Amino acid sequence: MKKIGFVGLGIMGKPMAKNLLKAGYEVTVYDIRPEPIAELVAAGAKAAKSPGDAAAGAEVVITMLPNSPHVKEAILGKGGVIEGVKPGTIVVDMSSIAPSASQEISARLEPKGVPMLDAPVSGGEPKAVDATLAIMVGGPEETFKEVKDILSVMGASVTHVGAIGSGNVTKLANQIIVALNIAAVSEALVLATKAGVSPERVFEAIKGGLAGSTVMNAKVPMILAGNFKPGFRIELHIKDLMNAMDTAHELGVPIPLSAQVLEMMQALKTDGKASNDHSGLVQFYEGLARIQVRR
Amino acid sequence: MKKIGFVGLGIMGKPMAKNLLKAGYEVTVYDIRPEPIAELVAAGAKAAKSPGDAAAGAEVVITMLPNSPHVKEAILGKGGVIEGVKPGTIVVDMSSIAPSASQEISARLEPKGVPMLDAPVSGGEPKAVDATLAIMVGGPEETFKEVKDILSVMGASVTHVGAIGSGNVTKLANQIIVALNIAAVSEALVLATKAGVSPERVFEAIKGGLAGSTVMNAKVPMILAGNFKPGFRIELHIKDLMNAMDTAHELGVPIPLSAQVLEMMQALKTDGKASNDHSGLVQFYEGLARIQVRR
Repeated sequence: MKKIGFVGLGIMGKPMAKNLLKAGYEVTVYDIRPEPIAELVAAGAKAAKSPGDAAAGAEVVITMLPNSPHVKEAILGKGGVIEGVKPGTIVVDMSSIAPSASQEISARLEPKGVPMLDAPVSGGEPKAVDATLAIMVGGPEETFKEVKDILSVMGASVTHVGAIGSGNVTKLANQIIVALNIAAVSEALVLATKAGVSPERVFEAIKGGLAGSTVMNAKVPMILAGNFKPGFRIELHIKDLMNAMDTAHELGVPIPLSAQVLEMMQALKTDGKASNDHSGLVQFYEGLARIQVRR
Repeated sequence: MKKIGFVGLGIMGKPMAKNLLKAGYEVTVYDIRPEPIAELVAAGAKAAKSPGDAAAGAEVVITMLPNSPHVKEAILGKGGVIEGVKPGTIVVDMSSIAPSASQEISARLEPKGVPMLDAPVSGGEPKAVDATLAIMVGGPEETFKEVKDILSVMGASVTHVGAIGSGNVTKLANQIIVALNIAAVSEALVLATKAGVSPERVFEAIKGGLAGSTVMNAKVPMILAGNFKPGFRIELHIKDLMNAMDTAHELGVPIPLSAQVLEMMQALKTDGKASNDHSGLVQFYEGLARIQVRR
């Protein structure tokens, strides 16, 4: 079994690294905070003093960090992964970042004989714990094959979607659709509620038809209950939509509806709601219409 | 079994009236065109000379027409249903119209002792033929109970959602969500395609997760095939979104994303694409980004 270096032990990274330990892998971990390192060491991991230290001796280095700048710093910065790797080490960044950042980092690793995959996940903390994440992977097919077993330890589905950056493009497509589907349900239910129709009856009447969606089934019960406990926080969806905007601008693809939902989420952030579940987007509409969608 | 008057034998009304005949109801039909009347008479219906004539002697009068003005004219105009009804006749308008129009018409019928339901459908021509429409009904509960058997002849699901107008509010909520879910898929897939990622692989990677929807499963294969044969025509979705806008303005509920999708559909209409399936919304984005989403 391959030796693994794991950098980033946050809400997602910690349970993912634990699942690798449970599967029997030798894992060397690093985080900027000492607490999660200690927790992982208690679970059988070795502690590293830097990302580069976690990479030294590892055959596969996994990074799981908040956004593009953190990944660039951890891989390319002082004491970074790039200082510990040797030719043949595989770097798998599982963070959700800008596709262009994945490509930049890969271009810096390639001359060192270090192939890279971008492998962002969807599913959130519960699926990280249960090892049922959906993992979308970009990068060379042969590199993908070498680490597929390792990724399968953390996810229920592991899909190779294309060249480096493609994993994050797929993740952005996913996040655009989820954001707009939440907005769709919000716009419709606030209108129906203000028209005096029970939003619950509307939900029951339409969920089996063409308007049905996983977002509708997962989020409308939360909206009807006024329960915006995350789940997936608005501030994280803002990050993803910012990366989608940057990518769209680089490519010359207008994404006007995503831009508008991003602004709605920004307005909620200003209103102190950044830590609510993204289904709390309905509160933007509720505020405008002076009504609440409730059971 | 109740005697039925049926007004409006278009793409939807014709198969719906035929299903009532097949179920053994006595049906008297009217349309502004003689051809569908002759076709229904051949199938066992009686011919009427006007909407009022179709209503005379009927216990239940069903109207199935394109939009609010047509329904107002057929029910309240010269030779209209209102001239043929007697106290106790039930009027069921199954057209998709503005909720306020349903309320206005009902208010005119009520003093005559004629209760009314608004009962728009979703599912399109195939489900009208198969009698598997989803029917959303607004109006008095006791009136709903009296005609539920008749509606069940035409639909797979018949849901009472509230007072008069509620059926059309629910239909508008449905159409808002469908329009925005199509836009969501379009915005995401055009971005992914321009980024060089196979839209088919993106679809496969994300359809099982939170981004999944009935729209995605039904429409993405059409988009990947470049097949925009309706289905549900863009010009009809424009009508529904116009009614949604009018309703939203009356109620004071901003629906900014619906407004934007309406404009996208209007742009496609200007471009000669009004008769395409509404999944052809992707062509708006394809035009902006100078790329096509294809398998």
